Amino acid sequence: MLSGGLDSSTCLAIARHEGFECYCLSFDYGQRHRIELDAAARIAKSLGAREQRVAHIDLRIFGKSALTDEIEVPKGREAQEMNRGIPVTYVPARNAIFLSFALAYSEVLEASDVFIGVNAIDYSGYPDCRPEFVHAFETMGNLATKAGVEGRTRLQIHMPLISMSKADIVRNAVELGVDLSLTHSCYDPDALGRSCGECDSCILRKKGFAEAGVHDPLVYRDTVLQP
Amino acid sequence: MLSGGLDSSTCLAIARHEGFECYCLSFDYGQRHRIELDAAARIAKSLGAREQRVAHIDLRIFGKSALTDEIEVPKGREAQEMNRGIPVTYVPARNAIFLSFALAYSEVLEASDVFIGVNAIDYSGYPDCRPEFVHAFETMGNLATKAGVEGRTRLQIHMPLISMSKADIVRNAVELGVDLSLTHSCYDPDALGRSCGECDSCILRKKGFAEAGVHDPLVYRDTVLQP
Repeated sequence: MLSGGLDSSTCLAIARHEGFECYCLSFDYGQRHRIELDAAARIAKSLGAREQRVAHIDLRIFGKSALTDEIEVPKGREAQEMNRGIPVTYVPARNAIFLSFALAYSEVLEASDVFIGVNAIDYSGYPDCRPEFVHAFETMGNLATKAGVEGRTRLQIHMPLISMSKADIVRNAVELGVDLSLTHSCYDPDALGRSCGECDSCILRKKGFAEAGVHDPLVYRDTVLQP
Repeated sequence: MLSGGLDSSTCLAIARHEGFECYCLSFDYGQRHRIELDAAARIAKSLGAREQRVAHIDLRIFGKSALTDEIEVPKGREAQEMNRGIPVTYVPARNAIFLSFALAYSEVLEASDVFIGVNAIDYSGYPDCRPEFVHAFETMGNLATKAGVEGRTRLQIHMPLISMSKADIVRNAVELGVDLSLTHSCYDPDALGRSCGECDSCILRKKGFAEAGVHDPLVYRDTVLQP
């Protein structure tokens, strides 16, 4: 599963490094911006994935998330305070839906390994990013499919980033040659595609780069370009 | 979850009978025919549902099912032989995907009860129609959502038809006043909307009506209309 963000891109690089042939699945789910999908396509290509498919699903019919709805994306202090509970950028049952599509895709490919870049350390408080959720999904997935029933393949959901800090993820990405200028993290980029630098996702990303001592090649809205 | 077929329509009637306010979710998943969606809308209205929504999802990108792909729907003896294994009309991980959407919908509604018309007796051999699959989904669903994490609601997936034969379902439908002429079961209706009478779904339906001693009001392709 590849969104084109820092986490899923690093996850793909790890899967490739472990010798997997990778088939990437991205989602067009009525996001407020499509930059994410362009990033996913570029990342898949640059990391030598065999294929990248985009599943179109309309989560807007359910509304109620700042990522798909007309709710404003919280910034700065508000974004940080949000981290105490479940943030408004949470999309209802999003990872359950995404993993279900990955399950269908893996069944068609007769693949038994699904990689997801969820992270339990520097994460955003989404219930569906927790390892217990992913384990329960794996159990369900093995009961849902032909291959599981016939015992041909046993689905395994890999979460290589689960116990990494954002700084660890940045370091891994650098080590595995991820072109970080291609990744995209911002929830609320401007019309030029520049990251806001202030949303929850930008704050976590900047913190990770700073702690890892790595220069973030992204252009933020407040980036002062050197002459 | 309401497809407009005999099972899901009866399931809705049972939920209504138990006193639930019902919000129906139907799926436009690139079926070969749309008659199913018209049936769902009519059934929802006739049984007094509060709302019916249609989620658009494209399972065709995964292919490999006679219901969404260019594979021929098996008929007659072939359809019956199919029942020994998992049939080609199986759509990869379909119920996992559908239930994930129901999970999102229930979270937005702050509802804790999801009804699904799966059936383990006269069923079609689909792995994702078995009770152990649905139980595993419920466990996963309670870990996936805000409400589950905050302990506000506990998701319960009801399967009122799980141990009914098709004849039991027909009898229940009649008892609860389901207008059976509105339901639709055929996998391969003709351009006039007439059921083929020969696919797996038609065979099971006809058997159920016959065993229940109830007249099936549907028009089949070979129905001889009395003058």
